[in-house]
Amino acid sequence: MEKPSLPKGTRDFGPSEMIRRQFVFNTIKSVFRLFGFQPLETPAMENLSTLTGKYGDEGDQLLFKVLNSGDFMKDAPKGGSSKDILPHISEKGLRYDLTVPFARYVAMNRHAITFPFKRYQMQPVWRADRPQKGRYREFWQCDADVVGTDSLLCEAEILLMIRQVMNGLGFKDYTIRINHRGILSGIAESVGAVGKESHLFVAIDKLEKAGKEKVTAELEEKGFSPEQVGWLFTLLEKKGSNEEKLAFAKKDFTAPAAEKGIAAMEELLSMAAAYQADQIPVFIDFSLARGLSYYTGTIFEVVINNVPIGSVSGGGRYDNLTGVFGMPGVSGVGISFGVDRICDAMEALNLFPETITAASTVLIAHFDNASFRYGLPVLRVLRDSGIAAELYPEIAKLKKQLDYANKKHIPYVVVIGSDEMQSGNLALKDMTTGTQETIPVTEIVAKLAPNHAPDTIG
Amino acid sequence: MEKPSLPKGTRDFGPSEMIRRQFVFNTIKSVFRLFGFQPLETPAMENLSTLTGKYGDEGDQLLFKVLNSGDFMKDAPKGGSSKDILPHISEKGLRYDLTVPFARYVAMNRHAITFPFKRYQMQPVWRADRPQKGRYREFWQCDADVVGTDSLLCEAEILLMIRQVMNGLGFKDYTIRINHRGILSGIAESVGAVGKESHLFVAIDKLEKAGKEKVTAELEEKGFSPEQVGWLFTLLEKKGSNEEKLAFAKKDFTAPAAEKGIAAMEELLSMAAAYQADQIPVFIDFSLARGLSYYTGTIFEVVINNVPIGSVSGGGRYDNLTGVFGMPGVSGVGISFGVDRICDAMEALNLFPETITAASTVLIAHFDNASFRYGLPVLRVLRDSGIAAELYPEIAKLKKQLDYANKKHIPYVVVIGSDEMQSGNLALKDMTTGTQETIPVTEIVAKLAPNHAPDTIG
Repeated sequence: MEKPSLPKGTRDFGPSEMIRRQFVFNTIKSVFRLFGFQPLETPAMENLSTLTGKYGDEGDQLLFKVLNSGDFMKDAPKGGSSKDILPHISEKGLRYDLTVPFARYVAMNRHAITFPFKRYQMQPVWRADRPQKGRYREFWQCDADVVGTDSLLCEAEILLMIRQVMNGLGFKDYTIRINHRGILSGIAESVGAVGKESHLFVAIDKLEKAGKEKVTAELEEKGFSPEQVGWLFTLLEKKGSNEEKLAFAKKDFTAPAAEKGIAAMEELLSMAAAYQADQIPVFIDFSLARGLSYYTGTIFEVVINNVPIGSVSGGGRYDNLTGVFGMPGVSGVGISFGVDRICDAMEALNLFPETITAASTVLIAHFDNASFRYGLPVLRVLRDSGIAAELYPEIAKLKKQLDYANKKHIPYVVVIGSDEMQSGNLALKDMTTGTQETIPVTEIVAKLAPNHAPDTIG
Repeated sequence: MEKPSLPKGTRDFGPSEMIRRQFVFNTIKSVFRLFGFQPLETPAMENLSTLTGKYGDEGDQLLFKVLNSGDFMKDAPKGGSSKDILPHISEKGLRYDLTVPFARYVAMNRHAITFPFKRYQMQPVWRADRPQKGRYREFWQCDADVVGTDSLLCEAEILLMIRQVMNGLGFKDYTIRINHRGILSGIAESVGAVGKESHLFVAIDKLEKAGKEKVTAELEEKGFSPEQVGWLFTLLEKKGSNEEKLAFAKKDFTAPAAEKGIAAMEELLSMAAAYQADQIPVFIDFSLARGLSYYTGTIFEVVINNVPIGSVSGGGRYDNLTGVFGMPGVSGVGISFGVDRICDAMEALNLFPETITAASTVLIAHFDNASFRYGLPVLRVLRDSGIAAELYPEIAKLKKQLDYANKKHIPYVVVIGSDEMQSGNLALKDMTTGTQETIPVTEIVAKLAPNHAPDTIG
């Protein structure tokens, strides 16, 4: 007899969590669909040749590898180390993100796809990271990417989608941070980091987590002078409106890449404003880097203000997504929403609507076999009107049946006794207020039927 | 430069397949919800201790095992066989079905769950089976189970759910086969298979796939006489209405288990009829076994008539689901829909509604930067009304933009030129009929806005 448990870093989602997660998934999906993105799903397992080398050495370590079937040791070197043996015993791994599988899909289907191709994908990913609060080994990503165009409309639409998702979820106080690879190049040039750009970018990327002091130490160790580091922080911490920051950048960052980046930022902000007169809470942040090796243009990140859980969404433009799969020159831009952190933030801010529930709307309670039987066609009438309903499955005391409704948060109980069977009017008990009325089933239906058609429930 | 590929037995689902699969998932989910089932999701990875030994020796072979992270060979016996080494290098596996993870969940959460517990679960499962037509290594199951009651209402509701799912998907010609473990025991007794029941059941289970001849040979090899085998087939092939079959069974199968089974069948068919006056295409089939070691009561299976792809759904009652996890005496009954086969059958019968589409409803086409800009607020107005819409992202020839709409099956194109910008009336082109009308954006919205609210799209 074993005591069952879950692998560390993984979770079950019971009914009340599921219904909240479905609310988040549905909200994000409906925005993706409104913006013309189409669904894609890829397998949980990919060939290791597809995954390896795409996420850096650290990423390769964090890939979950799947053992070959059958006599897997057959061709493995006897007595070899883990590293020697691995290629012989495993050829598949679990998806680490949704971007590489997407790139693989695009490369494999390049002749069937009409470009620009706008796809969304909402699936779990797996990383053998050390589990900790808010970091799981199985977590969900919701990605939307456009590939095959370098139009800045795509960047503008990402801002607008973020806004619509955040509004749909009920977030009032959030910040979209935005930056551009070209501006980071301008900063590198201004600091005098020519030839040492990558050291600079790696350090900037750590700024938020590690703090100024550690980053200073790291940069000085890499040969930057205190003056250079001082000037760097002056630039990164530049305050002011987006216009002021861009004006400053124009004056100070004269590298061609920086000019391109500044023009791109101006253009995409202007497009977003033309679409949407309302203010979008987007702020240019010169220190935003997000793993620079990947992004080649605009970089995005979304944080919920005053909820210290890190970013809930991020993305950017990459110029050569599919090159590694033999399809060069495909520019794309994408955004990824982290459902797990979004749910945590909504929980912290109490943003889930009270109306979303996994429970049935009605429980039919009864006293004996006759009233149980009487309940069967009543049950059908309720469900035919789109009302999620249950008949208590056993002959039991009324108290037990009401307890069941209470514990399951079923808001209404229809009680069928001999009076009800005789009159055809049923007792409808409102479990929230405790009130009860005796009405025909047609009135119960009129009162409780959802506005939408039955097939859109859930 | 590698040529990307997919692991064998796995698939990508592009937009047109996804939208069809979503239709199937949503239909099944809405029926589950109407019937009071609540969502559950469990992790893709389970501890091997949870999975191993639950699916027989063959099942254990088909489990995908996940390699431990880090230096996995550290504690493995040097030069050992695959079997010796396995326990040292892998402690997790991929979910093989949804039933065992559900049992694990119930056992782990027994004190928090209100019973009867009705849950549905729609997730992929993985099996290292040899891939072939219609059999994949990653496929989706949609399960609904009730645990914690032995009420036959649950069985009746499964028939009714099957009926509602099949209707919702558009299947007109299907059969629900039903049997009971008790009736199979009665058959065993009648044939004189006392002490050899398991041989008999294993053979019956193979009947549909292997055919009468092979099953006869197998039974005779196991010591059954030709008379016994002949009598067995007479029973299994019994023709007639459900009532006739039950009357025959009552007369002929006198074992207590058989009596219980016959009474259960009568009761659940009677409940289903009381709920639903319409005919449900349910047929008692004495030869239905479905892996008998598992089911202890009613057994269900659904086939699409004249579509030779095997069963699309199956299930039954089991008396001791959670016993292996230290929680004995929990009776349950469940049904599982196989989405992959359902999609194949719907494809074969051309049942997918033409109205389901992954495409946007509108593409906004333009001629230059001015009309592109003019399109931005138009885009917003359309989306604010719940119309999925796109603005062509680049300045391009009109023909290219119309081609894009055609290839993506976008049914309407709004064309913005200088006339349109001047008048404020926009050209709306119906891509199906080729007709065009020039109307204000408010009329476009009135014409194309979906009936449902924007947040229920998709």
